Amino acid sequence: MAGNTFGKVFTLTSFGESHGAGIGGIIDGCPPGIALDMDFIQSELDRRRPGQSKLTTQRKEPDRVEFLSGIFEGQTTGTPIGFVVWNTNQKPKDYRHLKEAYRPSHADYTYDKKYGVRDYRGGGRSSARETVARVVAGALAKLLLKQVGVTVNAWVSAVGNITMQRHWEELDLNERENNLVRCPDPEAAAEMEAAITAIRKQGDTLGGVISAAVTGVPVGWGEPVFDKLHADLGKAMLSINAVKGFEYGSGFLGATLRGTEHNDTFVRKEGDIATLTNHSGGIQGGISNGENITFKVAFKPVATVMQAQETVNSDAQKVTLEGKGRHDPCVVPRAVPIVEAMAAITLADHYLRQKMYH
Amino acid sequence: MAGNTFGKVFTLTSFGESHGAGIGGIIDGCPPGIALDMDFIQSELDRRRPGQSKLTTQRKEPDRVEFLSGIFEGQTTGTPIGFVVWNTNQKPKDYRHLKEAYRPSHADYTYDKKYGVRDYRGGGRSSARETVARVVAGALAKLLLKQVGVTVNAWVSAVGNITMQRHWEELDLNERENNLVRCPDPEAAAEMEAAITAIRKQGDTLGGVISAAVTGVPVGWGEPVFDKLHADLGKAMLSINAVKGFEYGSGFLGATLRGTEHNDTFVRKEGDIATLTNHSGGIQGGISNGENITFKVAFKPVATVMQAQETVNSDAQKVTLEGKGRHDPCVVPRAVPIVEAMAAITLADHYLRQKMYH
Amino acid sequence: MAGNTFGKVFTLTSFGESHGAGIGGIIDGCPPGIALDMDFIQSELDRRRPGQSKLTTQRKEPDRVEFLSGIFEGQTTGTPIGFVVWNTNQKPKDYRHLKEAYRPSHADYTYDKKYGVRDYRGGGRSSARETVARVVAGALAKLLLKQVGVTVNAWVSAVGNITMQRHWEELDLNERENNLVRCPDPEAAAEMEAAITAIRKQGDTLGGVISAAVTGVPVGWGEPVFDKLHADLGKAMLSINAVKGFEYGSGFLGATLRGTEHNDTFVRKEGDIATLTNHSGGIQGGISNGENITFKVAFKPVATVMQAQETVNSDAQKVTLEGKGRHDPCVVPRAVPIVEAMAAITLADHYLRQKMYH
Amino acid sequence: MAGNTFGKVFTLTSFGESHGAGIGGIIDGCPPGIALDMDFIQSELDRRRPGQSKLTTQRKEPDRVEFLSGIFEGQTTGTPIGFVVWNTNQKPKDYRHLKEAYRPSHADYTYDKKYGVRDYRGGGRSSARETVARVVAGALAKLLLKQVGVTVNAWVSAVGNITMQRHWEELDLNERENNLVRCPDPEAAAEMEAAITAIRKQGDTLGGVISAAVTGVPVGWGEPVFDKLHADLGKAMLSINAVKGFEYGSGFLGATLRGTEHNDTFVRKEGDIATLTNHSGGIQGGISNGENITFKVAFKPVATVMQAQETVNSDAQKVTLEGKGRHDPCVVPRAVPIVEAMAAITLADHYLRQKMYH
Repeated sequence: MAGNTFGKVFTLTSFGESHGAGIGGIIDGCPPGIALDMDFIQSELDRRRPGQSKLTTQRKEPDRVEFLSGIFEGQTTGTPIGFVVWNTNQKPKDYRHLKEAYRPSHADYTYDKKYGVRDYRGGGRSSARETVARVVAGALAKLLLKQVGVTVNAWVSAVGNITMQRHWEELDLNERENNLVRCPDPEAAAEMEAAITAIRKQGDTLGGVISAAVTGVPVGWGEPVFDKLHADLGKAMLSINAVKGFEYGSGFLGATLRGTEHNDTFVRKEGDIATLTNHSGGIQGGISNGENITFKVAFKPVATVMQAQETVNSDAQKVTLEGKGRHDPCVVPRAVPIVEAMAAITLADHYLRQKMYH
Repeated sequence: MAGNTFGKVFTLTSFGESHGAGIGGIIDGCPPGIALDMDFIQSELDRRRPGQSKLTTQRKEPDRVEFLSGIFEGQTTGTPIGFVVWNTNQKPKDYRHLKEAYRPSHADYTYDKKYGVRDYRGGGRSSARETVARVVAGALAKLLLKQVGVTVNAWVSAVGNITMQRHWEELDLNERENNLVRCPDPEAAAEMEAAITAIRKQGDTLGGVISAAVTGVPVGWGEPVFDKLHADLGKAMLSINAVKGFEYGSGFLGATLRGTEHNDTFVRKEGDIATLTNHSGGIQGGISNGENITFKVAFKPVATVMQAQETVNSDAQKVTLEGKGRHDPCVVPRAVPIVEAMAAITLADHYLRQKMYH
Repeated sequence: MAGNTFGKVFTLTSFGESHGAGIGGIIDGCPPGIALDMDFIQSELDRRRPGQSKLTTQRKEPDRVEFLSGIFEGQTTGTPIGFVVWNTNQKPKDYRHLKEAYRPSHADYTYDKKYGVRDYRGGGRSSARETVARVVAGALAKLLLKQVGVTVNAWVSAVGNITMQRHWEELDLNERENNLVRCPDPEAAAEMEAAITAIRKQGDTLGGVISAAVTGVPVGWGEPVFDKLHADLGKAMLSINAVKGFEYGSGFLGATLRGTEHNDTFVRKEGDIATLTNHSGGIQGGISNGENITFKVAFKPVATVMQAQETVNSDAQKVTLEGKGRHDPCVVPRAVPIVEAMAAITLADHYLRQKMYH
Repeated sequence: MAGNTFGKVFTLTSFGESHGAGIGGIIDGCPPGIALDMDFIQSELDRRRPGQSKLTTQRKEPDRVEFLSGIFEGQTTGTPIGFVVWNTNQKPKDYRHLKEAYRPSHADYTYDKKYGVRDYRGGGRSSARETVARVVAGALAKLLLKQVGVTVNAWVSAVGNITMQRHWEELDLNERENNLVRCPDPEAAAEMEAAITAIRKQGDTLGGVISAAVTGVPVGWGEPVFDKLHADLGKAMLSINAVKGFEYGSGFLGATLRGTEHNDTFVRKEGDIATLTNHSGGIQGGISNGENITFKVAFKPVATVMQAQETVNSDAQKVTLEGKGRHDPCVVPRAVPIVEAMAAITLADHYLRQKMYH
């Protein structure tokens, strides 16, 4: 009800503020018998970690997860999995100047008005550091999905005005981990890196788009009429910090097509039913149809710029905010594992939900 | 869990198939003392009704709602409101040819595989006729929101490639009800009408975009980190039939802007705090900031075309489907009240949720 | 949230007031492919119906359920099952005198204060007539449970001070339907009938106890730590009108025993594991252990007596309430199918929840 | 869905096993601005702690709670409150003999069958040590309820066959903290202590009954028809380890009374409405009526006895289990704060839920 739980069967309830003791959560509904691959979980956390390169913020946090329950002799037990990632590198003094000033396009003002009490250090609960809990739960979800042959991959497909033009199926998606922007097309990646470097020098920031593809989902996941698979995926993505839009399959472009162009013809394929095209993005009527599930997520430019900005304080008086601290000039490279995590949690949830009534 | 309930405090649980006895639902959590304006409720149903014009399907359904409970002497009592809109005009024989063939880009195939049993008449549960329940609940939500000064307006802003260029704040939104496409810009409306008429003659269909603006929401609605106001609005919209994408505020375009362009400067305005621009779409950190809430919803072209289409049947054998029956060539004009309804339900829910802990 | 939904996977959302249009609900999460045995469903409604005999109220209501959705060609489809039982025999004039007076030990006063608006006719939403929706959903749940070999039986084990002394396993439970009090022990039944007849002549009422046994539940149903099987059964029972207490297995008597007396020794039985005794009532640690699940439910005496009673009106002024109308002198015989229904719904829910783990 | 969350607005999601890293949870939906009285919270934990006396188990655990989030400068912020109580005194070797043997009337067998994987050390998740999380959340709930004048008190009213005869309103409830059994009647307390000491010497155990009274609840809390206040209280109590029964107001005894005896006459009292008697236990129609809320909870005798017991292992082979380790001979004294905690959580939840209507 207070909004800190995601999912209905496979659920994550998260807690934690940027500069509190730590970020953590409880994963409930994870089936027993999943082997805990700690190397994999750590590698997911590493993908999200700041300080990976000059393109991202320079904070050096270890971000190691400590599991507190729900695991015995290396396996999940079916009981709730409590975990925490300790905050080790907080510098609360960096944020004292924010106690009074409302940073433009941040959540300072709305949190203050909503709750009346606010942990202003580093954005508190509204900080993207909260997503570390999602990455932990997403790693568990991926391990669960792996058992049924489902893979979730996301990548950066646009930074500012630079858009990757090649189709993802022509590319090696693993290639995205070989560059700092997490774009699988090396040429587009180079351009994106240059753009981020340039904007950083200007003390400004850029937005971008993350694309994702989920493979291996069988026909039948999704719970219409409200918990359609893409509706839950959309909510999952829109709950990530800085996200402004979500589309799946043909998306907004699909709105400009004709029905005869857009319809995905059913055909027989290896004895089974498949579609010739995939404008549906792998989901029809809110239920997976066995094709690849594809979607895109738009991220706004990072709100913290390294320039002076006019704003007001809590007394509605004009103040000038100087840009300082350690911040990403573009959030999308680090958001790739977060998008994957939220997609994996959503799919794990629907995988288990589908089991319920069959 | 099975996906037919929306909302957490103000909730709609819907039931009904296209060609069953009726479409209905239960609204639970509606506060007591709301005067039931039946004329208003009927007018909302009329806006959604097919057969309004040559642009929409020619079925003539009365679509009158019968309230079964939760109302006494013209007011809500705080107990659950059961209601039904009877199906009076079903022609099941029209659909017998669909029993075996899977219509392209419809939910026939996925429902069949998911449930094993399927009411194939008119799409059954997957039919957009289900949205009549949403419009009833949305009308109640609007009556509730009216008490706190909140108004929800949606309109058609694009049909196929024709996009309304003028900003909604320059226009009289009421004007949208004076044309068949529900676009408040009469010139754009005329172009859109022409495009729909033309596509209809070709036996083809068009998609489009609906834009919406919610005014009067105070600071503080929305429940981060997962039930962010825009995340719940996004899920609400994506749960509507034929929707392919959702964006709020600057949306996908925002992903191409710089931080210094995108940030909404806080200013003092009439003693209170406001923003100079509204790229945030009235929501920051998942919580309303007092500005207008704006979002857009992309609809794919209607999947039922009046042309022969190749497809397969449940045995994966090739069949040809002839286009027939009564169908809209473009769904967006009739979807306007549905978008408004789902937005109103979402906002009513968050209005009540916000009361809980203050 | 507003309290009109029971269950998490197999759910009933109910609506309706005593003298409104009807009582109904939506069953969501019922698996597809359950054959709808209408004779069975009607027989369950008949068991709950008033006017069965001189022991119960003389209202003659047909109580036929109309299914509005979720069923196609005689089978459930997996989509929500809307239904209504029309109220056909309301006499609102009987209740006009209650508009102002708060009946002792009824919900008139609390509803008035909670909601501010109240449908006072026949108790409105607080009337036990609401349980007709539970019986319909319970009948569906029984049909589902039957597929996995689970049977739910309840019976009257006490009326006022008269308690059935014989153990249920020595008796033929079907025998309970052969007498008016639904007690499977004919001798106890005769005494109970005499007691009810006597109290009725005095214009007074009696309470009683219903016992229940669920057979065929395999090991593993129940979701600790909060949704323990007996905790959900307890809530289900306590949500029934007039219920004052719930106990399972050894219950309150168990609190007086020693550990060595109370412990159920595990033994090997037909190659499997069983217990020698069943003080656990078939549930250990909140999870079914394969033994019979047994529990008891205490009902208070009916609050409406055929005698004059002092009370107050909404202005806190003293008024005298004359007993009139048609009311049961003892509710337990008619409550037997309601207890069974709520048990069946709870078990159906946990049956489906358990599937998550496999 | 997996059963580890309690409440709908004020919620506790708990995690942790007896011999894992710790027991903890997340409290979500706690309003902002509650001052964190750490001394009070610690005193609640101390009341639950084992090793308080010769009557309870000799484990010496510090049981200090560490709050990880949701608190800033000594106040709740409205964001989720993560917390952990570290396990510091585990001796896993004590439990190695339980790996194979199923302890009678414990959850070993049912957990093993349900999940397939089991942390057998000290009962794992099924251990009453889990209730430490409830006591932390209950302390927060009490602090919230205190703001609106609501007090929750529980006490031991029976141990084995010894029942406190005096009415709680004649006694000073604080007196219960002055004796080891937490009975407010010193004479009954002395008898109970003697009984526990005696049974302990025999290597056997006793059950008992805890009574509770909640004062200060205004008219209007509770959400019929399913989330009746007493139904949620009942579920809360039944979810506590070793509980076998729950009754409120007149309870099972009420089932033996006549309507004219049982009805609570409404009267005018200090300008307001009150009842002369309180068989209703402060709740009518599932909604608080302004009188004291009273209920009783039955606990079975502790299953771990210090005597040899026959049982089977996971291969269904007969084994003998020797009694050893540190265990309470009677659980009710330590369960008093747990009963209070669960009552406080339930009431805090319904307090916030009731706000929806105003």
